Amino acid sequence: MEKILIIASVVGVLALLFAAYKASFVTKQEAGNDRMKEIASYIEDGAMAFLSREYKALVIFVIALTIVLAIGLNVTTAICFVVGAIFSVLAGYVGMKVATKANVRTANAAMDSGLGKALDIAFSGGAVMGMVVVGLGIIGISISYYFIGDPTIITGFSLGASSIALFARVGGGIYTKAADVGADLVGKVEAGIPEDDPRNPAVIADNVGDNVGDVAGMGADLFESYVGALLSVITLGVSAYGEDGVSYGIAIAAVGIVATIIAAFFVKGDKNPQKALNNGEYVSALVTVIVAGFLSNKIFGSFKPFIPVIVGIAVGLIISKITEYYTSEQYKPVQRIAAESETGASTNIISGLSVGMMSTVWPIVVIAIGIIVAYLGAGGKVEAIDGLYGIALAAVGMLSTSAMTIAVDAYGPIADNAGGIAEMCELPEEVREITDSLDAVGNTTAAIGKGFAIGSAALTALALFVSYIEVTGLTGIDVSKPDVIAGAFIGGMLPFAFSALTMSAVGKAASAMIDEVRRQFREIPGIMEGKATPEYAKCVDISTSAALREMVVPGLIAVVVPVLVGLILGVEALGGLQAGALITGVLMAIFMSNAGGAWDNAKKYIEGGAHGGKGSEAHKAAVTGDTVGDPFKDTSGPSLNILIKLITVVSLVFAPLFLQYGGNFF
Amino acid sequence: MEKILIIASVVGVLALLFAAYKASFVTKQEAGNDRMKEIASYIEDGAMAFLSREYKALVIFVIALTIVLAIGLNVTTAICFVVGAIFSVLAGYVGMKVATKANVRTANAAMDSGLGKALDIAFSGGAVMGMVVVGLGIIGISISYYFIGDPTIITGFSLGASSIALFARVGGGIYTKAADVGADLVGKVEAGIPEDDPRNPAVIADNVGDNVGDVAGMGADLFESYVGALLSVITLGVSAYGEDGVSYGIAIAAVGIVATIIAAFFVKGDKNPQKALNNGEYVSALVTVIVAGFLSNKIFGSFKPFIPVIVGIAVGLIISKITEYYTSEQYKPVQRIAAESETGASTNIISGLSVGMMSTVWPIVVIAIGIIVAYLGAGGKVEAIDGLYGIALAAVGMLSTSAMTIAVDAYGPIADNAGGIAEMCELPEEVREITDSLDAVGNTTAAIGKGFAIGSAALTALALFVSYIEVTGLTGIDVSKPDVIAGAFIGGMLPFAFSALTMSAVGKAASAMIDEVRRQFREIPGIMEGKATPEYAKCVDISTSAALREMVVPGLIAVVVPVLVGLILGVEALGGLQAGALITGVLMAIFMSNAGGAWDNAKKYIEGGAHGGKGSEAHKAAVTGDTVGDPFKDTSGPSLNILIKLITVVSLVFAPLFLQYGGNFF
Repeated sequence: MEKILIIASVVGVLALLFAAYKASFVTKQEAGNDRMKEIASYIEDGAMAFLSREYKALVIFVIALTIVLAIGLNVTTAICFVVGAIFSVLAGYVGMKVATKANVRTANAAMDSGLGKALDIAFSGGAVMGMVVVGLGIIGISISYYFIGDPTIITGFSLGASSIALFARVGGGIYTKAADVGADLVGKVEAGIPEDDPRNPAVIADNVGDNVGDVAGMGADLFESYVGALLSVITLGVSAYGEDGVSYGIAIAAVGIVATIIAAFFVKGDKNPQKALNNGEYVSALVTVIVAGFLSNKIFGSFKPFIPVIVGIAVGLIISKITEYYTSEQYKPVQRIAAESETGASTNIISGLSVGMMSTVWPIVVIAIGIIVAYLGAGGKVEAIDGLYGIALAAVGMLSTSAMTIAVDAYGPIADNAGGIAEMCELPEEVREITDSLDAVGNTTAAIGKGFAIGSAALTALALFVSYIEVTGLTGIDVSKPDVIAGAFIGGMLPFAFSALTMSAVGKAASAMIDEVRRQFREIPGIMEGKATPEYAKCVDISTSAALREMVVPGLIAVVVPVLVGLILGVEALGGLQAGALITGVLMAIFMSNAGGAWDNAKKYIEGGAHGGKGSEAHKAAVTGDTVGDPFKDTSGPSLNILIKLITVVSLVFAPLFLQYGGNFF
Repeated sequence: MEKILIIASVVGVLALLFAAYKASFVTKQEAGNDRMKEIASYIEDGAMAFLSREYKALVIFVIALTIVLAIGLNVTTAICFVVGAIFSVLAGYVGMKVATKANVRTANAAMDSGLGKALDIAFSGGAVMGMVVVGLGIIGISISYYFIGDPTIITGFSLGASSIALFARVGGGIYTKAADVGADLVGKVEAGIPEDDPRNPAVIADNVGDNVGDVAGMGADLFESYVGALLSVITLGVSAYGEDGVSYGIAIAAVGIVATIIAAFFVKGDKNPQKALNNGEYVSALVTVIVAGFLSNKIFGSFKPFIPVIVGIAVGLIISKITEYYTSEQYKPVQRIAAESETGASTNIISGLSVGMMSTVWPIVVIAIGIIVAYLGAGGKVEAIDGLYGIALAAVGMLSTSAMTIAVDAYGPIADNAGGIAEMCELPEEVREITDSLDAVGNTTAAIGKGFAIGSAALTALALFVSYIEVTGLTGIDVSKPDVIAGAFIGGMLPFAFSALTMSAVGKAASAMIDEVRRQFREIPGIMEGKATPEYAKCVDISTSAALREMVVPGLIAVVVPVLVGLILGVEALGGLQAGALITGVLMAIFMSNAGGAWDNAKKYIEGGAHGGKGSEAHKAAVTGDTVGDPFKDTSGPSLNILIKLITVVSLVFAPLFLQYGGNFF
């Protein structure tokens, strides 16, 4: 096993080297004319300013929790926690830094060299984020397990990753939507200037938002999933098969990284960016599957532990496809929302909500079947622990090619930003056409990426949940006990409260932004004629402050409630809480993400000419739906991924405490 | 125990006699002039036509299920099922018949004799429904237990009640909202004629809808809760304390009925209808509590089993108060939605959704604490079964004064109808003022009644769920097992699917109604001048057909999915399914009902003059929110009450089958 851990760390370093190679490729490119460099620097500065203020705020949180961990548990766990947090920050920082360099270079390549080169730069920018995430993830877990050897303690690493992820996703989600709504409502609707117009004071904040929400937030989300899945495969692997169990789980992750590096060379093409990205995903998945089968037979002399790996990859793929069905304008659900827009905003809203709720059915059925097949496939009928290990393997299988998923996902906002820069710098029409074609693909990959993020969060949280049972030594979590069902009710309620808080946070932040943009239009002379530069920094500051302020309460709830329930009602009730939160969290995340995606594309479908096209009554109704969908799909929905994982990680980390002091009621 | 069962049956007969007395009081009143009689007969005919068509459709369902029960289980269960179904139908029929007689007589009394008399008639009309529900409920359960003696078999009775309730709530909910939306959108908004204008072709359907949705649907809902709570207190009472356990549970129900009859005499007053209704509720609760304490001491020599009864009543009361906070215009949440309406429909919608989700927090905390206190209070620490019995007692305690709750709740639509009749018959302004003041109180009681219906559904479903564990002999329902967590995921998903289906059903039915009303305005000459009578019957028919057609799929899902999971995955996984459905069902019901209520009252708050008042942009936005809220609060939300109870009842009834054949996977 030691050998595998060392190899995994080496593969992690390889990933970081590949990231460095890709990053230097990006930065070596020409950044365009002075105007482009200026605009790009605004975006980069805004994004970095957000990150540094966010991280400063987090220092307090991290220090406080470190002290709690050191006193309540032990110093090693506390150190793991700090390292996990730093790794997550590092991944976010590097990923965003490169993404904000790639955007302007993508625009410039679109101008100078055409689609193929632009695609290469945008994808390379995303690949840096992907590689840094998996590289740091596998290094962190492998090395800490190598030296510490006790999975209970390295949960601290996972908690560090989760804490940063929470704030990155929630803060990033609030930031991006406040800026988006402010830019759209006042700029586009009230002032009547086009998207990405440099006269709009919120335009920089809007572009920054794409980076902090969709790049840094998403990266932190998947970093958390990745680390959590590895942690649970170690915890359950030891119990099920000893060292072999750990080796196999870690090996699959390492294989996935190598497969992604190979696959990255297939993402090329002058014509069809969708096909190029698909190539990357197919190649990485295929290589991983083949090697995983081979390894299963070599390590265990059996293909049984290979089954959950396939299940994990298949579940990820199927959920992504279902997401596409419910959110793409090519299919009935979105078209129905568009049709219902003809009778006004209320019917648009009702049908969007209905589509979102209906879209939970098949992903849940797939997850349910996946759980059972992963369990039985790994041999759960004979030995229960083999089955639980199977669930962790499914999570690792799904996440093995995370680097590719993140790369493709982060490609979206880079292409989007490139388009924004092209517009703001008034580059030729053909340039905008190229960036538009890159961006269009990015919209599809974003929707699919959201489905993948939810699916992986569900499987990771589930794997952590079963690890919790293993760690606490519980014989089961019996929901027919009153404390457990009470815990399950409270856990089930948390995603509702969390969504309510994040939605109203976006509302508050957006109205502050609206007021500021209106003020600038009113008070700065010559702004509408393009003679005066708007005060971009003020809008960036409003989004930043609002995001930081509004993320505190939901963040605290996610940490404090599980701890309170664990202490007051005990370990089994806390198991109930996790189960409740997991179920409603996954359901609400699917519901909100898909409803938001469907509303967005229903609007685009109408803008494409259906039901009267732009400016029609149907279009107005669809814009209302899209605005409701914005916090759904970009703030509340994705934040729930973090919530369900964080709750299970917090429970796992503090389990020893609850075992000792918790639940003297029953 | 035999004595108590006989006494309970006698009390049940007493309730029916009191209902007969109240019914004859109502029908003896003068129904007003010819025009009033004519309008009233339209409403009565429409309501009765809906009921008879609904019941005819149900005959097929009932016969099919009877055969399944007779073959799959045994003939006695099948007979109990048929009797339960017939009793529910009977309660719905009598209650609606009297309600549709009381409305016109309330209007006439408002004209001839003033507020006091009008209040008396409206409340008496509601009291008939309340008394018939509890009378038939207690007679059915007591007599069948007296003769059969096996609680497993009399679950058939409960299944009968649940089946009818499902269709009454879902069908009634679709009916009432299709008519409401059609009447409002085309009549009020497009044609610009006032509410309840006789020129509106959908006006009769709208008034019929109040009866079939809010009277018959609500009555069937609480009949199901009432019967389910009694059933579970018998099942768990026998195990915990033998005959004494049963006696105490049944006795409390009987006491509640007598207390309500006494309290009914306190619902009087010429000035403040709210105070009169409150008097009724306080007196009935107070009498029940005092006698329940006395009985607990007498039967058990201890006040312990008295604690859960207080818990049940307290939980009902507190949830009602929380509901009021989130849905009344006197408090911040509704005022915030109204304020957010100033920036348009999307911010109105977002804040309404946010308020609805946030409103789940405290009811869930109260339910969680209630479960634990009921369990521990009844002595659960020593003997688990005592604690489970405590949960059933809490449900019975909460439902003991159901007759009063139903009476107050059904009073609302009667007063509402009376106002409609006054408007359509152009009665003097003072009459409308009286009916308006009655109706205003009705709106508050309706919101509170919804909270009570959800709370009682939650406790009843929970009590049935713990009965399920007792009946199946499971040692627990362990959500860490893969089949159980898979079941919980599927169960958790059902309320989302169910809500999606019922919402889109309303959408479809409403557009059929809109088309028909538009057609009549276009094609019938002289309709707008009041010279030609609209074809009311056509609109009634559209609502009826749509409701019957659209309720089939959600209805089947509720029955078929639990049976499939029980057969494929087995009894413990089905326990997981129930837990999942219970948690998300309660959360979604609270979310949807309260969001709907809050949107409704935010609109009324603006209409009262805030934020620009009627006709302002804020008002338009609030109307959009209210329209979204209509299916939330009157169709999908209340239907979930039935869903969660029905799932537990179906599981309970078919448990013997699943024990024998189910779940050969694990």
